[in-house]
Amino acid sequence: MDVANIKSPADIKGLSDGELVQLSKQIRNFLIEKCAVTGGHIGANLGVVELTLALHKHFDSPTDKIIFDVGHQAYIHKILTGRAEHFDQLRQHKGLSGFPKRSESEHDVWEAGHSSTSLSAAMGMAKARDIMGEHYHVIPVIGDGALTGGMALEALNHIGHDKTNMTIILNDNEMSIAPNVGAMHNMFGRLRTNQNYHRAKVDIDGFLSKLPGGHMLRDSADRIKDSIKYLVVPGVFFEELGIKYVGPVDGHNFKALGEAIETSKRINGPVIIHVITKKGKGYEHAENDKIGTWHGLGPYKLDTGEQLSSKAKAPSWSQLMSDNVMSLAEKDKRIVAITPAMPVGSKLTKFQQQLPDQFFDVGIAEQHAVTMAGGLAANGMIPYVAIYSTFLQRAYDQLLHDIDRQNLHVVFGIDRSGLVGADGETHQGVFDIPFLTHLPNVTVMMPKDEDEAGKMVYSAFKEYSGPIAIRYPRGNGLGVEVSDAATGIPYGKWEVLREGSDIAVLSFGPTLQPLLEAQEALVKEGISVEIVNARFIKPLDTGYLNDLAKRNIPVMTVEESVLTGGFGSLVVNHFNDQQRDVNVKRLGIKDEYIEQGEVDLLLQDIGLTTAHYIDEIKQLVSQDEETEN
Amino acid sequence: MDVANIKSPADIKGLSDGELVQLSKQIRNFLIEKCAVTGGHIGANLGVVELTLALHKHFDSPTDKIIFDVGHQAYIHKILTGRAEHFDQLRQHKGLSGFPKRSESEHDVWEAGHSSTSLSAAMGMAKARDIMGEHYHVIPVIGDGALTGGMALEALNHIGHDKTNMTIILNDNEMSIAPNVGAMHNMFGRLRTNQNYHRAKVDIDGFLSKLPGGHMLRDSADRIKDSIKYLVVPGVFFEELGIKYVGPVDGHNFKALGEAIETSKRINGPVIIHVITKKGKGYEHAENDKIGTWHGLGPYKLDTGEQLSSKAKAPSWSQLMSDNVMSLAEKDKRIVAITPAMPVGSKLTKFQQQLPDQFFDVGIAEQHAVTMAGGLAANGMIPYVAIYSTFLQRAYDQLLHDIDRQNLHVVFGIDRSGLVGADGETHQGVFDIPFLTHLPNVTVMMPKDEDEAGKMVYSAFKEYSGPIAIRYPRGNGLGVEVSDAATGIPYGKWEVLREGSDIAVLSFGPTLQPLLEAQEALVKEGISVEIVNARFIKPLDTGYLNDLAKRNIPVMTVEESVLTGGFGSLVVNHFNDQQRDVNVKRLGIKDEYIEQGEVDLLLQDIGLTTAHYIDEIKQLVSQDEETEN
Repeated sequence: MDVANIKSPADIKGLSDGELVQLSKQIRNFLIEKCAVTGGHIGANLGVVELTLALHKHFDSPTDKIIFDVGHQAYIHKILTGRAEHFDQLRQHKGLSGFPKRSESEHDVWEAGHSSTSLSAAMGMAKARDIMGEHYHVIPVIGDGALTGGMALEALNHIGHDKTNMTIILNDNEMSIAPNVGAMHNMFGRLRTNQNYHRAKVDIDGFLSKLPGGHMLRDSADRIKDSIKYLVVPGVFFEELGIKYVGPVDGHNFKALGEAIETSKRINGPVIIHVITKKGKGYEHAENDKIGTWHGLGPYKLDTGEQLSSKAKAPSWSQLMSDNVMSLAEKDKRIVAITPAMPVGSKLTKFQQQLPDQFFDVGIAEQHAVTMAGGLAANGMIPYVAIYSTFLQRAYDQLLHDIDRQNLHVVFGIDRSGLVGADGETHQGVFDIPFLTHLPNVTVMMPKDEDEAGKMVYSAFKEYSGPIAIRYPRGNGLGVEVSDAATGIPYGKWEVLREGSDIAVLSFGPTLQPLLEAQEALVKEGISVEIVNARFIKPLDTGYLNDLAKRNIPVMTVEESVLTGGFGSLVVNHFNDQQRDVNVKRLGIKDEYIEQGEVDLLLQDIGLTTAHYIDEIKQLVSQDEETEN
Repeated sequence: MDVANIKSPADIKGLSDGELVQLSKQIRNFLIEKCAVTGGHIGANLGVVELTLALHKHFDSPTDKIIFDVGHQAYIHKILTGRAEHFDQLRQHKGLSGFPKRSESEHDVWEAGHSSTSLSAAMGMAKARDIMGEHYHVIPVIGDGALTGGMALEALNHIGHDKTNMTIILNDNEMSIAPNVGAMHNMFGRLRTNQNYHRAKVDIDGFLSKLPGGHMLRDSADRIKDSIKYLVVPGVFFEELGIKYVGPVDGHNFKALGEAIETSKRINGPVIIHVITKKGKGYEHAENDKIGTWHGLGPYKLDTGEQLSSKAKAPSWSQLMSDNVMSLAEKDKRIVAITPAMPVGSKLTKFQQQLPDQFFDVGIAEQHAVTMAGGLAANGMIPYVAIYSTFLQRAYDQLLHDIDRQNLHVVFGIDRSGLVGADGETHQGVFDIPFLTHLPNVTVMMPKDEDEAGKMVYSAFKEYSGPIAIRYPRGNGLGVEVSDAATGIPYGKWEVLREGSDIAVLSFGPTLQPLLEAQEALVKEGISVEIVNARFIKPLDTGYLNDLAKRNIPVMTVEESVLTGGFGSLVVNHFNDQQRDVNVKRLGIKDEYIEQGEVDLLLQDIGLTTAHYIDEIKQLVSQDEETEN
């Protein structure tokens, strides 16, 4: 069977285990080749080839609901549901999504991108089934890393209590995005190493009858009888929660997978199948990855596995922010770094190695990460929480209730602020400005380049107080020279990068560079543009704004972020509250989700390019002249 | 010892158990008397009298850090730290907070209000201690209900992994705000009933040696040896997470409490002491509460326990919203209700009794509640999530990533929107407008009275689609007549309540009544005020706004919510984007947290009363005349 010819799961149902093994090889080759060109979450998908085949063989999608937690491991699912032909456009603009997508296929019953949502979704679907008197299987597939996210545990607590029928697949590969941590991870490790694969559950009574005195043991006090199952039943943690545990199962063995799945179907109530898989399985470069560099990545060389990242002229923003914080932390042990499972993505591995006592990877646990930072700050430390903008959404209440309301000095490095590209709408960092700026005590900044980033970090730890958010984009710095003097930035003050008399443009971060280009082009046409580095998004530089209001020129705000509740909206409201009639044009993301694609293409769609800026500015200036004439 | 004379925990350290029993009685009488006048969380506090005394006897606050989860059970802690004299002003405007408050006392090391934050805070404090080489105890006190909140489980996973020294007090009273639910709750129940109080842990080897053949059992395979502890060690769930379990302990027995605490001090690493308490202990009316009516309440009669709620002229908003949804759910089983542990507060007990199959109390698990609603909606149901505004903060990412991004038809009843009064700054429902309105697909409404509420509920389930939020305030309806016709509201259309020509005032919900009063008063002074029921906060009624812009009159927006990112800010931005120069005055909550107090007093402080409206309108109208002259 050719991978490209698979039209639906029906095509694989009749295959023998041997044929499935063959198909697995073909699928692996297909994925390795395609992702070498497009990039993608190759490691996670190579790990679940057999598992996904087994699920589609033994369950009937889309009647049965297979729900992929996080969603980046659904490539094989996409192949088996007739989408192989679109893999050349994987994660590309207008192409195949790297995540389940309900508009792509009836087999994609739930969309994700963030972790730990599958069990709650499954519970909702299973309850819908039961209320409507229908009969089908609900199968959430969740990684061991995602399972420790708080909301997944909330769901387990509910599922176990209600004894709702579902088959939970615990895909245990010891890595989510980086090596997993936490007590539950240790527990899974004990389960893995203490048990033989494929061993059926031992019959308790039979087991005991073989022991001298076992019958007495069996007949003794109730309490002992209640506890006796722990003697032979692994997965007591789940059993305590009311969920039957099956496993561990070799996730690359079709026979074992099939038996476990069929067993789960016969059990009434919730079952968890503990499946052991190997991330990167079948591609040595990915298989040998110990720290997570093969998690989500760009194109690579097929033979050597060398990652073909475009030669950057400067370190990544994540790296330079981490280095900045580390250089302060080396001299001040009150400064500690916290990451929720992103030591690699947030470039904190050097920090982790050099200052292990001041570093905490708390696993996929954004809420705990933020409130733990609050506890540290309440006891005199100055924590740095490095977190992707999109994942900080998970800790909005902790930011508000625990950090901002107590006005604690915590510094947030908001990574991947703005558009992120190929990961698409679940990962765009375009909501943090509106969800941060209404918090009364917070300071929100974004540096224009790496030199300013260093100064902002210095000020954030040494000069300012309260909660401070420093946003920075995905990708690399500009390559500017970094002054090493320990100096900061005057609190709340913007910086005029170019003075101008016809219009003032206010922006911050990566949109400033194309604006400067627009400014240069416009100067040649006789239009004088003031470009302002509005590096404080909160508080606004009201001194500058009040002076600006008196100048009677139009104002344009530009942000790679949603407009509603955004920076431009704050500027407009400031002018309004000062009863200043200023013509403000706001550029940014309208009221919609931005799908995947190269950031340049997305910016083109949204209208945030040098050419757009030139057009908009010309229009604003000419309107303004008309009004005045 | 007189309760009022206690100045610090030092005063009770020398007391014998007998004297502590005496003091407990005095404290109970003191609390029952004071709360009869002020109201408060009497039930929870009566349950922890002995526990709090034991903590302050055996630990040294504030060097040792006692962290109260949720915080409403800290009354005894406040008494023991010298604040008894302020209890006449408990929860009053400018008075003693009903929650820990860092500005009140050095003994209040962490503030809360929302649930499940204490373990993360404790982990931060313990790590700060260890990094700085200090030595003291960290003691989070968490209820069995709060422990099932996701972030608490995230913290346990980290604490158990790092083996960080702390003593976790699990205050198990089978009730948080209502009877607790969930698999962990069942587990605690097994622990409670299967074990005798005060029983020391059985020595495993000793125990086995008494059994015939036990020595063989002891010496058999490694796997069995690893598992054998489950035979005799209770609390295996916590032990699996790497946390030593001590208990269960009678939470009303000083000797048992003292022994358990002293045991925990000798253990290296994290310990959980499972303390069994009785909510309402010592006051029969509260003790007999089975459903949570004695959780947080107003004044009551000392002798009968009768709750002295002011005679309401109409049912509570919570009740009428629940009834509206129930009447639809009776005829359509796709309509189901979900509450995160608030069946009593959200007045869903009738729904729960009459439609048990369509009702889900998921426990303190806001994230799971929202995403489970998403799973239900993805399978064709129309879920109703009744949730307090302040607690919906906990599920911001689930709202965004799971519901809004997938544009699922879920109806949110946002209870306690606006100011809530005595619970103070952790509970004010004043952030939901800014955190909801930037979500692309959401509809946000607020009804002016119960008749409109019924129509909104009808439209939300029967006519509109996508995520829909209906905000409603704490307190009671207006008592207007309710039309029973099954009719809805034209989508996105506001309602002009009073036409006027000098100024237009846009508002929604409970602020409309005092505005109508202001309008009546101003008519007599010859000022013609248009009052608009802006019942759609998103989308704005842009047709109305565009017509309004042409009328050249000033506009005032009024919202019982924060101004930044709020309704008024959306109106201002709409006019700006339409290049309309309209003078808009925005009234609402400035950039600050609003503390406790009667809502009327808070509105006075904020400037949202009839008198304020009259003044503001006069000023705006006269300014406008000046400008025009």
